[in-house]
Formats: sequence, C-alpha cells, structure tokens
Amino acid sequence: MSELTDLSLSEVSDMLDAGTVSSLDLVEANLRAIEKTEPLVHAYASVLAEEALDAARAADKAIAAGDRRGALHGIPIGLKDNIYTEGSVTESGSKVMAGFLPDYDATCASLLKAAGAIIIGKTHCHEFAYGVNTPPSRSPWNTEVYPGGSSIGSGVAVTSRSSYGALGTDTGGSIRVPASINNLVGMKATYGRVSIYGVVPVAWSLDHVGPMTRRVKDNALLLAGMAGYDPEDPTSARQPVPDFCADLEAGVSGLRIGVERDYFFYDGLIDEIRTSVEGVIAEYRAAGAEIVELSIPELEITQDALFTIVLCEGSSYHRKLIREHSDKYDPATRALVQLGELVPATHYLAAQQARRVYRDAINRAFADHQLDAMLWPTMPMTTAPLDALNAPRADGYPDTPVGSMCHHTFNANLAGLPALSVPCGITEAGLPFGFQLTGRAFDEAMVYRIANAYEREHDWHTRAAPLVEGV
Amino acid sequence: MSELTDLSLSEVSDMLDAGTVSSLDLVEANLRAIEKTEPLVHAYASVLAEEALDAARAADKAIAAGDRRGALHGIPIGLKDNIYTEGSVTESGSKVMAGFLPDYDATCASLLKAAGAIIIGKTHCHEFAYGVNTPPSRSPWNTEVYPGGSSIGSGVAVTSRSSYGALGTDTGGSIRVPASINNLVGMKATYGRVSIYGVVPVAWSLDHVGPMTRRVKDNALLLAGMAGYDPEDPTSARQPVPDFCADLEAGVSGLRIGVERDYFFYDGLIDEIRTSVEGVIAEYRAAGAEIVELSIPELEITQDALFTIVLCEGSSYHRKLIREHSDKYDPATRALVQLGELVPATHYLAAQQARRVYRDAINRAFADHQLDAMLWPTMPMTTAPLDALNAPRADGYPDTPVGSMCHHTFNANLAGLPALSVPCGITEAGLPFGFQLTGRAFDEAMVYRIANAYEREHDWHTRAAPLVEGV
Repeated sequence: MSELTDLSLSEVSDMLDAGTVSSLDLVEANLRAIEKTEPLVHAYASVLAEEALDAARAADKAIAAGDRRGALHGIPIGLKDNIYTEGSVTESGSKVMAGFLPDYDATCASLLKAAGAIIIGKTHCHEFAYGVNTPPSRSPWNTEVYPGGSSIGSGVAVTSRSSYGALGTDTGGSIRVPASINNLVGMKATYGRVSIYGVVPVAWSLDHVGPMTRRVKDNALLLAGMAGYDPEDPTSARQPVPDFCADLEAGVSGLRIGVERDYFFYDGLIDEIRTSVEGVIAEYRAAGAEIVELSIPELEITQDALFTIVLCEGSSYHRKLIREHSDKYDPATRALVQLGELVPATHYLAAQQARRVYRDAINRAFADHQLDAMLWPTMPMTTAPLDALNAPRADGYPDTPVGSMCHHTFNANLAGLPALSVPCGITEAGLPFGFQLTGRAFDEAMVYRIANAYEREHDWHTRAAPLVEGV
Repeated sequence: MSELTDLSLSEVSDMLDAGTVSSLDLVEANLRAIEKTEPLVHAYASVLAEEALDAARAADKAIAAGDRRGALHGIPIGLKDNIYTEGSVTESGSKVMAGFLPDYDATCASLLKAAGAIIIGKTHCHEFAYGVNTPPSRSPWNTEVYPGGSSIGSGVAVTSRSSYGALGTDTGGSIRVPASINNLVGMKATYGRVSIYGVVPVAWSLDHVGPMTRRVKDNALLLAGMAGYDPEDPTSARQPVPDFCADLEAGVSGLRIGVERDYFFYDGLIDEIRTSVEGVIAEYRAAGAEIVELSIPELEITQDALFTIVLCEGSSYHRKLIREHSDKYDPATRALVQLGELVPATHYLAAQQARRVYRDAINRAFADHQLDAMLWPTMPMTTAPLDALNAPRADGYPDTPVGSMCHHTFNANLAGLPALSVPCGITEAGLPFGFQLTGRAFDEAMVYRIANAYEREHDWHTRAAPLVEGV
C-alpha cells in the first residue's frame, strides 16, 4: 500500500468512492510517510495522529453507510500553522505563541472539516508568516536550497508525499512561491473568495489562504471545500461559488491569454525558466488559444507598494504583541515590525493609491484585450541557497532575496486577482519551477481549466523529489 | 417682490409650478439680496450673475412650454467653493487655487444643473475646507461670533436669504455645525449616497457633500437632486434612491428614537441647549414616538479617531501640492499638513480600526433597540467668538475650539450614517442652535420624516437674522 501516497488527492478520492481504499488506509499511509520523511524534511510543526485516525474511522463508517459527504471526505490534509484549529496547538512559527490553543477553528479549517477532510497535522511556517529566517523545514529536492516560504511546511509536506494537499497563506507569494519551488500546484484565489477569519494576519488587505496540491484537480477540489462568503470576515465577498471542476477538461481553444514580457521576462529571468515558459506559451497557442502580447507599465510600482503596505499593516497587527513579548520574537521579525512603525501614514496611503492604479491597469488590460487569463513565470529563479536567507545584516535588519523571489507574485496580491502556480519544469540542477496563470476576479474556474489543459499533457506531477523517492 | 427671498425653496418651487412667479423673478430677487447683504456678510466667493440670469430665462422658457424638469428647475442655489464648476473659478478658499478654472463639474453640481437648479454663486469656505482661520464671511446673527465652518459661506448665504439653499461639505461636521449656528437644516447623508467626485477632498474616507436649507422639505428636494450612484466615485454606493419626500408628513407615532446622554448631554452642554433639546425629546414622546435611553461607551474614541484620520488623509492629499506652493498656504493650514506627515501609519490604522469598533457599536445599538433614529444636540454650544478662531499659537500650530464645536458631529462621519441638523431654538443672546437626528444607513427618508414632524409645529425657520432683517 505504500504507493498510495504517490497517488493524487483526486485519485484516492475516487478510490474512496469505489470502495477500493479506506480513509484509514490513507491516514495510515500518510502517517507512515510522515514517520519516514519528517526526520529528513521537517514539514510538520505538529502531527495530529490520533485525531486523524479517529476521524478516518468515523469517515469510513459514514462512507460504508453510503453517506460520503463529497470529494474531500476521508482525505488527510495539512494546515499551515498560522491557521487556527480549535484545541490543537497553533504556534504560527513563533515562540510568542508557544503552546497556544485556539478555542475556535479558522473558517477555512471548519469548512474543510465539515466537508470531511481530515487534518493530519499543522505545517511549519516562517514566524507569523512574516519573518524571513527559515524554519527547520528542508527541501526534499535539495537540502541546500530554500524550499520556499512562508508556507514552507505545506510545500515540503505535499512534495514529500506525506500529505495529499495542504493549505498555505499568501500575502506576496507565500503559496505560489513554495508551489513553484516544490513542483506543486498552488492557488491564491480572488481576495474575498476564501475567508481569512481565524488566520493570523500578515497584512490584512493582501492576505489570502489557499490550497497547495500535486495536481490541478486536487487544488480545485480543496478550494471548493473552503470558498464562500463568511459573515465573520469583513473582507469576505458575497459571491456565488461555481463548480471549479465543471470545465476542467474544456481545453483552451478560442481562449485569449495575455503575456506581458517587459516586466516578467526581464533580464533577471533565468534561461531555463524562460525557455520552458516560452514553451508553455507555444503549447497553448498550438492548442488553439490566442496569445495576446500586452504591456502594463504600472507593474513597476507593485513591489514598492506591496512592501510599504506589508510593513504598515504588519506592524499594526504586532504593535501590542511586540511590546509584551519583544524578547520572544526572532530578531529579523522584530526588526521588520520596528521598521514598519517608522513609516508615515502618508506613505501608506500613497502605497494604497499606487496599488489602486495598478489594480485598475491590470483590470483594464483584461477588459481591453478580452482576456481569459494572463501567463508568466511564477518566479524569475528556481529558489535561493538556504545560506542566503539566514544571513542577518550587521544592523539587525534582514538581508533577503525575498524581493527577487516574489518579483512575479506581488502583483496578484495587490490586484486581488486569482493566481495559480503550475509545475512546468525541473532544471538540470534538479530544481522544479512553475508558470503562473492570473485570472479575472472570481474566475478561478477559468484559471483551473487553462492549467489543466497543460497538466494533462505533461507528467511533472509524477516526478518525486530525490530525498524522499521510494521512501 | 422683495419678500420672495423670505419664502422657502419648496414654496417658490410650488409657485413656479403654479406660474405665479418666474425663475427670473427668483434669480433677480436673490441677486438684489446679494447686493444688499454681501457688504455685511461676505457669503460669496464669486457671484455668477450673468450665468444665473441666462439660466433663469432658459428655465422660464422651458417651464412656459410645460417642460418643468422637477422641483429644482428654475431655483437659484449656492455651491461651496470647493465644489468644481466647469469654467467657473473654484478656489477652495485658498491662494494656492487662485483663479483655478475646473474643466468639469463635480457630479453633484452636474446633477443639480441637470435637474434645472441654477448656480447663483460659489460660497466662501475655510482653506481647502481644512484650515481653521476664518474666511471673510460674517454671521448675520451677530458679527462678533463665528458663523460656522467650513461651509461658512453656504450657511451665511442661506440664513441671509441670498440663496434658497446651498451645498456644503462635511468631514467632521462642516454642514451640520454651520446649519446649527445659522438656524438652518443641514444634511450629511449616508457615506456613498452623494458622489464626492469633483469635490476637493479633506479626508476622503470621511468626506460628504450635502444640502443646507431653511426647511426640511427644501433639504430633501436638494438631496434628491444630487443623490445616487456615480461610477466616477469609487466611494459611491450602488443604492437605489427613494423619494425622500414621500413620508414627510407621516409623523412619528410608533417610531423608536434613541437618546444617548452620557456623551451628548455631558457637563459641557450649555443649559439653554440642554433644556431646548430635552423639550424636543418630550415633544416627540408626546407625539407618539418611543424614546429609548441607550449607552454607547465607544463614543469616547470618536474624536481621537477622527482627528488622526483627517490629519493623515489630509496630508496625503496635500503632500505634493504643499511642496510646490508652501508659501501660498495659510500658516495654520500648512501646520496641519506638516503635522499629519508625522503620523505613523500604525496610528492611522489604529484609528481606522477604532472607527470600525465605533461604527459596529452604533449599528448594533440601532439593531438591538430597533431604532428609527437617534437624537442629540448638533453642538454642545451655540458657537464661539470670532477672536477665538483666529488666534494663532506661538508655535504656529492652530489653537481652535473646533474639537468642542464638532464634539457632537464627528461620530456620524466615522459611522457613515445620515445626520441632519434641525433648528430648535435661539438663545437669549440671539444665537440659534439645532438638534441632530442620526439615521440608519441609507434611510435619509426616515430622518427627514422625523425632522419634519418637529418643524411643522414650530416657526424657527421664519426667524430672520437681525443684520439682514428687512433688507
């Protein structure tokens, strides 16, 4: 049964329907994978073995009684540790929150539980999903490189086959970046599509929670389990949730896909990614999509705008906490919070205005060119050496390549548009990477459809990371 | 024909319908009043005599042809000088904007013009509706006292009978305060109800534009002429606009009116206002309304929250302008802009969060007590001596009683709820004052209904200011 963990979420879901596997089989297989891979990769902050086994038995009983609730019922998944889980330790990667037991579930967690998904563990993240120093998680592709953050444990768990899917959070790229680095599919849906109630904020006007999986359909199924209006979340959108899988196989013939090259295919883009993503574009064209070349000069303002907003909203959230627990913060996180407290309100407001200018520009580009999606690499590089992330500067402020790593992802947080990273290659050095599809607001279904048209012609999702291969 | 100017907007509107007066009569009567009163009160920054006479002749022609567009067609009104009027000088009370000719109308101006209203002039305001030093306008009730701001000219024009109504803007009370001081009805409608496109901002998240008139029905008619969704204004609400006059005569029997005394009837409230407003409450009770005593402790945070937001958004708007034209700003305005540039973003965000706490609290109070409106004095005092406003402090920062004068009005800007000042008394010293009705979001019609039930039993609107009486 060990190959069970190599199957995708949707494959084991079909097997649960067919009665050829039990939820207990799945949870046990995942727990065995955790036992073998955790000493190597450290994906989990906590493993909820007993709770998961109990939930699996309950799921199996319901399924045997013909009462399977849906595609997620009986399937083990992981949650990033900044997502509140009632009665389970939720530390957000910080000593400040050591031993913290929330007394309620985040809405995304309660929705997924209600859909029958089984929380097998909480995954490591950077401190408050904000700090830059790396948690203990290591990449199964290469332990010398950064496996991506801040949803680092979720990325490592899913790529290590110790979970069928996991939730991450994304304020500037923290779902899509570890997805790209780990050969995974990662979705940051439209702002307001998924409730962020019960998720520890980084910068509330940019924060998202979303699924990381091995395949596109898995991702659509998980998103379906957590999407929808939540009265507890003032940023939640009153938008109907369509069937994200309905058009998965509809292909791309006649669709219009925009490509912006000045910003996204700039000199800093590494050659292997450039070549591969150009290949993806060529495949879409060959499959009948119209590729529309376009220009969005306003992209130049996205990085400054995002950093300013993150610094201010981040410091706003931590203002009281850091006064009470300053000594427990990682010095790099503390430095960021202190830095943010120095930013004048006029700069914050200028950044929010710049953001609006960018958001209007990209929405105008979608409308003017009648686009179904836009396409560019998820990252301009594969990842960075671990050493580069943990080198503190002499002045205590963090020195980090995060600006380069998220150069291609910030814009979707500012615009609030859905953005999906899809695996599309592995370099000669053995490091995966992906391309990114950005859709119209609340049209995640179209993004999944276009992604699936590519995925079904390729087998990147079958490539296992060397460190855990055959484990 | 000189008594024409003593009539109310709705009275002369009925006469236009009946053919017993012409629009030209009205404009000429207003221009004669302006000629007589302006040397005393200085309400107008500019008088548009020729344009108004031309518009009156055109209105009369249309009306004679049976084509009267509605209740505002043919009626002269004034606009505060921070409201853009295409091709007419719009200086916002500032030397920075000397001679500025907008190339488009503010949406409220274009809607009122489209409804047939005639712009007879632009009224004085404090510099950018922000500065504290007083423009040349003087109160016809007593030239030694402050006639209220920042919509100072609009208040003085309407109370001087040189206009049937005028628009003001209100960020913390600037419509309601001069309404109270000048014996007028002044409405700050729900945030988003009236477009602020083309109105020079003070603090965009708190700014409103609205009507100042002598009577409640006049006010409802003017609001109807300017309310509604505007795609040019991102803060505009997609809300249907009801007939604000439909229930004006429906009375208050069975309605529930909330009264909060801890904050609004505090020690600082002067006795004559206290006694009068308690009398208003007693009258409503006698007329069949249920008076509900309630407490909203969150009111204590409104003043700090509003000041912080105004400072930050104000400085954000002026950031570039003040670098180019620093020498043309009034020193007190310049000091405010400089002060706002020092406020950290975390403080701005804390103020916005406090605002949300207050907004939730007042909306909860409306819901919990099933209220139709709340009632309190518009101001805790009548007004302040002019000297008190123009005394600069040694350090250049303004010293102003604006905090006390707006103590009762700030909260409605923070909550975004409709708030109306209604005349309810004149002190022994001869200074008018009003009470304030606050309604549910987008229920201006209810506020007008309750106000009208009081107004029809009283004759405050017939009292003319001594300086212009019989002019």
